[in-house]
Amino acid sequence: MAEPTVARLTYRVPYADTDQMGVVYYANYLVYFERARTELLRLVGLPYREMESRGYGLPVIEAHVDYKASAGYDDELTITGCLAWVKGVRLRVDCEVLLGETLLCQGHTVHAFVELETMRPVRVIPELAKHSK
Amino acid sequence: MAEPTVARLTYRVPYADTDQMGVVYYANYLVYFERARTELLRLVGLPYREMESRGYGLPVIEAHVDYKASAGYDDELTITGCLAWVKGVRLRVDCEVLLGETLLCQGHTVHAFVELETMRPVRVIPELAKHSK
Amino acid sequence: MAEPTVARLTYRVPYADTDQMGVVYYANYLVYFERARTELLRLVGLPYREMESRGYGLPVIEAHVDYKASAGYDDELTITGCLAWVKGVRLRVDCEVLLGETLLCQGHTVHAFVELETMRPVRVIPELAKHSK
Amino acid sequence: MAEPTVARLTYRVPYADTDQMGVVYYANYLVYFERARTELLRLVGLPYREMESRGYGLPVIEAHVDYKASAGYDDELTITGCLAWVKGVRLRVDCEVLLGETLLCQGHTVHAFVELETMRPVRVIPELAKHSK
Repeated sequence: MAEPTVARLTYRVPYADTDQMGVVYYANYLVYFERARTELLRLVGLPYREMESRGYGLPVIEAHVDYKASAGYDDELTITGCLAWVKGVRLRVDCEVLLGETLLCQGHTVHAFVELETMRPVRVIPELAKHSK
Repeated sequence: MAEPTVARLTYRVPYADTDQMGVVYYANYLVYFERARTELLRLVGLPYREMESRGYGLPVIEAHVDYKASAGYDDELTITGCLAWVKGVRLRVDCEVLLGETLLCQGHTVHAFVELETMRPVRVIPELAKHSK
Repeated sequence: MAEPTVARLTYRVPYADTDQMGVVYYANYLVYFERARTELLRLVGLPYREMESRGYGLPVIEAHVDYKASAGYDDELTITGCLAWVKGVRLRVDCEVLLGETLLCQGHTVHAFVELETMRPVRVIPELAKHSK
Repeated sequence: MAEPTVARLTYRVPYADTDQMGVVYYANYLVYFERARTELLRLVGLPYREMESRGYGLPVIEAHVDYKASAGYDDELTITGCLAWVKGVRLRVDCEVLLGETLLCQGHTVHAFVELETMRPVRVIPELAKHSK
């Protein structure tokens, strides 16, 4: 079985992402997860913009985050994402956010694979499915 | 000449809007201005959603904010907006954000009045223009 | 056993919260959950701002959202929150977001109850714990 | 007279930054400007985080943006910033956002140079002032 494809990007935390506790506000990690998904799809040769132009979309149906440690302004984070599984019309992407070697949070999002015109779920296309763990 | 129509709404600051200085992050005031514009259009009988369904849009071409004082978490702000002027295909909305009697910031946005299909500027429709100062 | 206290607020969706799919971007629901938590704490007589001034905080350690249906610009949402449970140094808040009678999403956040000075978890104070389901 | 120092960074637009018009929401450009300021300060040897730890801050007192063209999801933007002037206790940073060769917007922010402990304006320190145009 092939190694799963893992997307990895770095991201510098702006003041905008912090809150008055002096740390990254918790909802922003879902935006970081989105950045990982975008890079993951580009990496497997199916950029999301292209997927949309082919008539497919990936609306989120579930999101989960476990927070371990906090990040602050100007920290350079590493964000990773990989395709955990594909089952019929659904898929799951697992993500992590790290500061150096420290795991800040991990989580996942589950998506429906849909035809944009009808918003009806359809079977995940094989060229994407083959990249799951 | 008629009194200008002034929209006024209250808004509770969430943690999400603050930054590590412990105050509302400066870009969020442009979101507050948008809330005032939305209420202003509703007040004059042309809700933005309806304007879009009639084929018109109001893209922003200029934004300006003068910051006077800061707001913090859980503050209940008052946001106001009024139509400063309409000139041909353009209009300006003036906004203020207050905490009690204290002016936190004032500013404005200038918008083009466009046909959404072509994105070409067209003359501001009279039913909107008549509400300028 | 007493009925659980349920906070309920309404919230108008600005353009800022939408994305190019024309719906509320998924991370914003965590901000809506925060709004419900703030009102819940106010309702039980322990506004978060007061809790902080007494030296306590509620950092998030887990967040989960199940998305059922989407919301759009200018929709007036109802957001609810209630204290699901309190166990030692942790508590969970359950939230829902509705548009009219339609459930858009439900989810929860788990928080540590901490002393802000040391960021060490401490037992949830009884005046808060008694409001769990 | 020395050439002004210009900070330049690239930034990939996430879905989070777009709105239902399918373009980057206008307030986000102020976050992009902040990213340019952060890089500008790092470039001149005074990272903002260090400036804060030395007791200084740069609250925004004015922001202005002229919007020329729009950006969309997954566009890779170039953001630039340079120190336009320093006058006593104030300074101005000029910023631009481009997509390839196309100027999307230009604008500026004016900041007070303050002592964080008192929030009182003080003369901009020479090591920063010397980098203005």
